[in-house]
Amino acid sequence: MRQTFTATLAALCIASAAQAQKEDFRPSELNQPGQEYPMVNSEGYARFRVVAPDAQSVVVSLGLGGRGGTTLTKGEDGVWTGTTEGPMDEGFHYYHLTVDGGVFNDPGAQNFYGSVRWESGIEIPAHDREFYALKNVPHGNVQQILFHSPSTGTERVAYVYTPAEYDKNPKKKYPVLYLQHGWGEDETAWSRQGHANLIMDNMIASGECVPFIIVMTYGMTNEVRWGHMHEFDWTAFQRVLMDELVPYVDSHFRTLADRKHRAMAGLSMGGMETRMATLARPQVFGSWGLFSGGTYAPADLEGKEKPLFIFTSCGEKENPDGVKKSIENLKAAGYNAEGYVSEGTAHEFLTWRRSLREMAKKLFR
Amino acid sequence: MRQTFTATLAALCIASAAQAQKEDFRPSELNQPGQEYPMVNSEGYARFRVVAPDAQSVVVSLGLGGRGGTTLTKGEDGVWTGTTEGPMDEGFHYYHLTVDGGVFNDPGAQNFYGSVRWESGIEIPAHDREFYALKNVPHGNVQQILFHSPSTGTERVAYVYTPAEYDKNPKKKYPVLYLQHGWGEDETAWSRQGHANLIMDNMIASGECVPFIIVMTYGMTNEVRWGHMHEFDWTAFQRVLMDELVPYVDSHFRTLADRKHRAMAGLSMGGMETRMATLARPQVFGSWGLFSGGTYAPADLEGKEKPLFIFTSCGEKENPDGVKKSIENLKAAGYNAEGYVSEGTAHEFLTWRRSLREMAKKLFR
Repeated sequence: MRQTFTATLAALCIASAAQAQKEDFRPSELNQPGQEYPMVNSEGYARFRVVAPDAQSVVVSLGLGGRGGTTLTKGEDGVWTGTTEGPMDEGFHYYHLTVDGGVFNDPGAQNFYGSVRWESGIEIPAHDREFYALKNVPHGNVQQILFHSPSTGTERVAYVYTPAEYDKNPKKKYPVLYLQHGWGEDETAWSRQGHANLIMDNMIASGECVPFIIVMTYGMTNEVRWGHMHEFDWTAFQRVLMDELVPYVDSHFRTLADRKHRAMAGLSMGGMETRMATLARPQVFGSWGLFSGGTYAPADLEGKEKPLFIFTSCGEKENPDGVKKSIENLKAAGYNAEGYVSEGTAHEFLTWRRSLREMAKKLFR
Repeated sequence: MRQTFTATLAALCIASAAQAQKEDFRPSELNQPGQEYPMVNSEGYARFRVVAPDAQSVVVSLGLGGRGGTTLTKGEDGVWTGTTEGPMDEGFHYYHLTVDGGVFNDPGAQNFYGSVRWESGIEIPAHDREFYALKNVPHGNVQQILFHSPSTGTERVAYVYTPAEYDKNPKKKYPVLYLQHGWGEDETAWSRQGHANLIMDNMIASGECVPFIIVMTYGMTNEVRWGHMHEFDWTAFQRVLMDELVPYVDSHFRTLADRKHRAMAGLSMGGMETRMATLARPQVFGSWGLFSGGTYAPADLEGKEKPLFIFTSCGEKENPDGVKKSIENLKAAGYNAEGYVSEGTAHEFLTWRRSLREMAKKLFR
C-alpha cells in the first residue's frame, strides 16, 4: 500500500511539475533559419513540434542532462507536439527523433556532429552565457586547414583559431593550444558546440587571457566503439598530431614553437588522448588539460619532464571529488596544478566551455 | 489504341532501363562517416536504404537533374530500399525523405544548406571530377570571419579563401573575388557544395590561374520567398557587401584594394545580386560573373564605367543560347566578354564548379 501511495504521489508531483512550466517559450537559438520549433522556456523546459501526419509514433531522445525521452502526441491537425517532463540542464544538448522506429533529426534544428553522426542540437540559455556570446568585439578567425599526412596517406582537416590581432602584428609569434573533441564528435565540435572562438574573442577583449592560437583536429575516434575504449590504439593519432600537424602548424602560422608555449587539452575521450599523449611525450606540450577526461596522479609523472601546468575539471554532476583529490595530491607533490568544477552541469558542453575559459585564464602566463 | 500502345511501350522501356543498371554500387562520397547508404553506381543510378520499420511510406525527393521522386519499398526486415528509375546527372544533388508525410533528412548522408534548410546531399561522380578533388598539393585555408555590421546591428559571418602561398609571402598583396551562393543557400555553399577552395588549390598548383582570395558571405536570401523574387530589396545586402564587408576584408587581409583587382560573381540568385551590384556601382568591381544567373546586354552598360571582364555561363540543360547570344552582342559592342556552357548539366552545382574554374582562368591576368 505504502509503495503504491508513494508511486502515486510521485506521479502527481511529476504531473504538477509538468503543469508548472512557464508559458514563455521561445525558439532555441540553434534552430534552422526561420524555424520556430524546438522552443525553450526560461525554466529550461523544451517543447517540440514535428509534422508527420501519417506516423504512428514520434519520440524525442535527449542526451545526458536532457531528461531522457519525450513522447510526442499527435494533434487533430496531424502535427506531433510535446514538452519535456521537467527543466533540462543549462547549455547544449544533442538529441534526435525516433519516427515509426527510424532515427531522424528534427527538421527544425541545426545539426552537430556527436555520437558518430550529425545530431540535432538544442541550447538551454545558461545564466552565465555572456562569456560565449557573439559580441561586437574584435573577432579572431577560425580557419579550415588541409594538411598532408604521410602516415595515413591522406589530406587531413584541422581548424585553427587565430586571435583578432594576429593579422595586425605580422611579426608577433603566438603560443598554441591543441584542443581535442570527445568520442563520436569531430574537429568541428569545439568551434560549433563549444564556441571556443567566441570564448577567446571575449576573454582577449577583456584582458582575461593572453592571445593564443587554438588548433582542433579529428581524433579518429570513429574507429573506437563505445564500451571498447580499452582497444583504442592511439599511435595513429599520435603520429598525425605530433609528427605531422604540430610541424605543419609551426611552419604555416607564426607560433612560439617550443614546449613552454605549446599546450594540449581535450574533453572526455579527448582528455584521455591528452593524458596519453602528454605522458608518452612530455617534451612536446608544456601545459596539460583534462576536461571530464580523467586525472593525473603524482605517480604518473615520476621520472618524466615536469609539466609547467596541469588543469583538470568536470561537471558538478560527474566526479568532482576525484578531480579535487587529484589536484590536492599534485599540489602536495609540488606540481603547478589547478582543478575546476562546473556548477550544475553534467558530461556536456557547458562544462567544457567553462573549462576552456578557466584553463585559458592561466595558460601561457 | 495507339496511345495505349505507346504508353505500354514507354512503361516497358522504363522497366527495362531500371533493370539495366550495373550492380557496382558504392557509398556516395558525401555520406556520413561509416554509412554505406545512399549508394551510387558507375552509371549514375542512386540506391537508398532507410530504417523505419513502422512507417507506412518513405519517398526520396531529388532536385533538378535528380530524377524527381523515388518511392522506397519495405522489406520483410522493416527496411525501406529503392533505386532511381534511371541515371542522374553528374555532380551534386540536394534531396530529402518524406516519411509518413513528414520531411526529414536521410540519416546516411551529410547535410548541405539549400532550399532554406539543411538538406541531404548526394554526389554522382563526374567524369571530370579531378579538377575539384582533394589532392596532395599546397592547400589554401578557408577562414570563417566575423565582421561587425552597423547597418544591420549584427555580427555577420563570411568565409575567406586564402591561397596556400598567402602565409609564405607576408608582403604580397592579392586580388579578391566576391562569390555569392544561390537562393536558399548560405555562405557555406561555395566551399562545401562547390569545393571552391579545392578548385583553386588545384588550379594554382598547376598554374592555370593566378593566386587570388575568394570571399563568400550570406546574401540574406531567406527573406525572399520563391516566386517573389521581384520583391527582393537588395539594398540591405548592398550596404553589407560594399560598405561593410569589402572595407573589412581590405583592412584585415593583404588585398590589392582597387577595382582592377576586385571581382564579383554569383550563381543563380547570387548572379542576379551580382548583376544588380555591378550595374549599380560599377566602380567597385572590375570583373563581373553570372553563373546561371542572367546576362548583360550592351544597353545595360551604356554610360557606365566599363567592366574589365564579363563572364556568363549556364548548364547545357538551361538556356545556353541566351548566354551565347549575349556574349556575342557584348563582344560586338567592344566588351571583353566570355561565355561558357557546362556539358550535360542543369541548374546545379557541377555547372557552377566548372563555371568558377573557367572564370578563374581569365581573372586578374
